[in-house]
Amino acid sequence: MLEGIGVFGTGSLARISIAALKSVGLKVVALWGPTQLKAKEIASMFDIPFYTDKIDDVLLHKEVDLVCITNPPHLHAQVASKALSIGKHVLCGNPAGLNEHDALKMVEAARYYPLLSLMSHGLRFVPAFMQMKKAIQKGEVGEVNLCDVRVACGSLVKEKFNWMCDENMGGGVLNTIGSHIIDIITFLTSQKAVKVRGMMKTFVTQTERINGIRHITSDDFCCFQMELSDGACATVTLNTHVPGHFSQEVLIVGSKGRLRVEGADLYGQLCGNKTETLMISDTQRINHQSDGMAGSADLPLPYLKGLFKLIDSVKESFERSQERRDWNTEPVAMAANFEDALYVQYVIDAVRQSSRSGNWEKIIIKNKEASENPFLQPGGL
Amino acid sequence: MLEGIGVFGTGSLARISIAALKSVGLKVVALWGPTQLKAKEIASMFDIPFYTDKIDDVLLHKEVDLVCITNPPHLHAQVASKALSIGKHVLCGNPAGLNEHDALKMVEAARYYPLLSLMSHGLRFVPAFMQMKKAIQKGEVGEVNLCDVRVACGSLVKEKFNWMCDENMGGGVLNTIGSHIIDIITFLTSQKAVKVRGMMKTFVTQTERINGIRHITSDDFCCFQMELSDGACATVTLNTHVPGHFSQEVLIVGSKGRLRVEGADLYGQLCGNKTETLMISDTQRINHQSDGMAGSADLPLPYLKGLFKLIDSVKESFERSQERRDWNTEPVAMAANFEDALYVQYVIDAVRQSSRSGNWEKIIIKNKEASENPFLQPGGL
Repeated sequence: MLEGIGVFGTGSLARISIAALKSVGLKVVALWGPTQLKAKEIASMFDIPFYTDKIDDVLLHKEVDLVCITNPPHLHAQVASKALSIGKHVLCGNPAGLNEHDALKMVEAARYYPLLSLMSHGLRFVPAFMQMKKAIQKGEVGEVNLCDVRVACGSLVKEKFNWMCDENMGGGVLNTIGSHIIDIITFLTSQKAVKVRGMMKTFVTQTERINGIRHITSDDFCCFQMELSDGACATVTLNTHVPGHFSQEVLIVGSKGRLRVEGADLYGQLCGNKTETLMISDTQRINHQSDGMAGSADLPLPYLKGLFKLIDSVKESFERSQERRDWNTEPVAMAANFEDALYVQYVIDAVRQSSRSGNWEKIIIKNKEASENPFLQPGGL
Repeated sequence: MLEGIGVFGTGSLARISIAALKSVGLKVVALWGPTQLKAKEIASMFDIPFYTDKIDDVLLHKEVDLVCITNPPHLHAQVASKALSIGKHVLCGNPAGLNEHDALKMVEAARYYPLLSLMSHGLRFVPAFMQMKKAIQKGEVGEVNLCDVRVACGSLVKEKFNWMCDENMGGGVLNTIGSHIIDIITFLTSQKAVKVRGMMKTFVTQTERINGIRHITSDDFCCFQMELSDGACATVTLNTHVPGHFSQEVLIVGSKGRLRVEGADLYGQLCGNKTETLMISDTQRINHQSDGMAGSADLPLPYLKGLFKLIDSVKESFERSQERRDWNTEPVAMAANFEDALYVQYVIDAVRQSSRSGNWEKIIIKNKEASENPFLQPGGL
C-alpha cells in the first residue's frame, strides 16, 4: 500500500507525471521545486498540500512513501540515493544522472535497499513494444540481425536557456531521447552493446532568445551504431531538426522476418509474407485530467502512453499488499531498473567518447564488487 | 545528330534503357550480351537488328555513334575507355567500374577525347531534386547543416547467383544504390566528402537457391556518415531487408529551413513555417512501351523517371547539331560525368576501408597530372 507520493520537479515531465499519478488514483502529497515560487505555482495547479524548495523536506515528509524524480538530471543521483537510504521508494526520470558516477551511486543504493527503484522508461510498457519483444522471444523473426531506429522531432531547446541547452547538465538528444532508445533496444533484443560508434552534432548554437554570451552546447543531432552481444547490429539516428513533427520508427530485421513499431503501432512481415501487416494499432485515448496535461505536447505520444501504463503498474505493485510501503515485484518486473539505467549510461558515455575519438568504443560494464559498494560498508555513506 | 546506339547488357537495366531510348525515338542498332543466346533473346524482344557476344563487334559497328553500358560493373571501364578511344560517345551505367583504377581509366579517356561521356545517374534529372538544388543554391534553407538519406528496399540478390552477390564483382547495396546517393548529395549540396565512416553488413549469406559452396559476399546493409567540405554532415542508411517495398528519403536541414524528397516528391519547411508543404508532387506517368518494361520493377520509380529524362536530354544534346556525332554540352550539363563518378568511387572505397578499419577515412582525390594520363602520352595506350 502506498500512502503518498513526493514529486521532484516543476517542468513539463513533472506536470505530466503528476497528472498520470492522480489519474490512476495515487495521492501526490509533496512537491519540490527549484524556487518556492515555482513550487507554489505547480502545487496550487494540482492541489498538492505541501511544496518546498528544500530537497530534504520532501524526502523526510511523513506521508511520502515514493518519490517521483522529474527534475534535471544533475539532481537525480543525489535525490534517488538519499531517498532509498531513508526507506523511500523511487521512480526516477530519465537519464540516471549525468554520468557513470551518478548512475553507479544509484545502482549501489538500489542493490542495498530492497525498495522499488525504477526508471520511468515508458516505452517498455507500450503494447506494440511488449508484443514485439514477445514475438522476438518466440523466434518469429528468427535470429535478430539488425535494429534500425530513427527519431525525428523539433528542437528540444525551449525559449529560455536551461539545462537542456547544456551538455554538462544532461541536455541534448542523446541523453534525453537516446537513453530511451538504448534501453528499448536492449529490452527488445535481450542483447547489450559490445561496442559503439557515434557522431554528435550541435548545429544550432544560438537562437533568437538564446544569444550573446550564451551558447547551446548540447547535441541536436546524433547518430550511432552498436554491435550487440549476439552479433546483431543497431543503428540509431536522432534528429531534432524536423520542427512541428514527431516520428519514431523502430525496425527489427531477423533472418525470418521483420517487425516495425511506428509511433505506437506494430507492423510485421513474417512467415515469408510479401507485404507487412498492421499487428497492433494503438489508437486508445489516454484518460487524464486535461488541465494538467498542458505540457504533454513535450512528451511524444508513445512515451506518454507508456508512462501512464508504467505508473498504473507501480500502483498495482503497491496495491497487492495491505501493509504500508510494502510492494510486489511482479507488476513492475518489466520496468527498467537502475542496473538497466547504468548500462544505458555506459553506452551514452561511450557514444560521447566515440564522437570525440572517431573510433569504435568498447562498452565495459564495471560491476563493482559488493565490498566496494559504500552502502555495504560500515559507515560507508 | 545521332545515327544509332549500341547497348551493352541484357539485364533489367539494359531492358529499361532500351525501352527508354526507343521511347524518345532513338535507334538501338546493336546489342552485346554475355552469350549469343541471351543477346538474341533480348535483341528479338526489342527488334534490334544486330546482336553479338563480342564487345568489339558492337564498338566497331558502323551505325553505332553512342554506346550505352548496362552490363556488370567489372566490364564498364574496359568498354567505356575503348569506346571513347575509337570515337564513340558513352553513357555508362552505375557505378564506374569496380574500383578507383577502373574509374581513373575512364576519367583519363574522357579527359582526352571530346566526346559525350556521362554516367546514367538519373536522380539528378528528377524534378524534385533539381528544384531542391535550386532552392539550396538560392539560400532558401540557409547554410546546409545536415543531409540525411534513408533507402529501404527488398533484397538486391536475384534467384540465381550472379555478380550482384559478389562484392568483388561490384555487387552490394553500397555500390549499386549508395553510388547514386553519394552522387546526389554532392549534386544537391555542391559539397564533397572530406572524410567518411561506414559500416557494411552481409546478413544474408545464403538463400534457398544460393547455397552449398556459394555464398553471398556483397553487403545487404550499409550505413555511413560523411563530413562534407563546407562543414555539413551527411548520414546515409541503405537497408535491403524491407521486402516488397521501396522507399527513399533525402532530407536536407539548413540553418533557415529544410527540404525533403520522398520518392520523387519534394516537401519543404521554409521561412519559419510550422509545418512542411508539398512543393512538387511527381505523379507524372512515364510514356513507354509497356512490352519492354517488364524489368522496370527492378528500378525504383525516381530512378526510372530520372533515367528517362536523362536519355531525353542526351537525345536533345545530339539533335542540336545536324552533323553526325556532333553534340552540344548544354542539355546534359547537369548530368554526372566520369569525374563525378571517380569522386563517387573514392568515397565508396573509403567507406569500404572504414568498415574494415573502424575509423574515419579521409577522401584523397588523386587528380593525376596530365603527363601521367596514358591517353596523353605518345603510344600510351
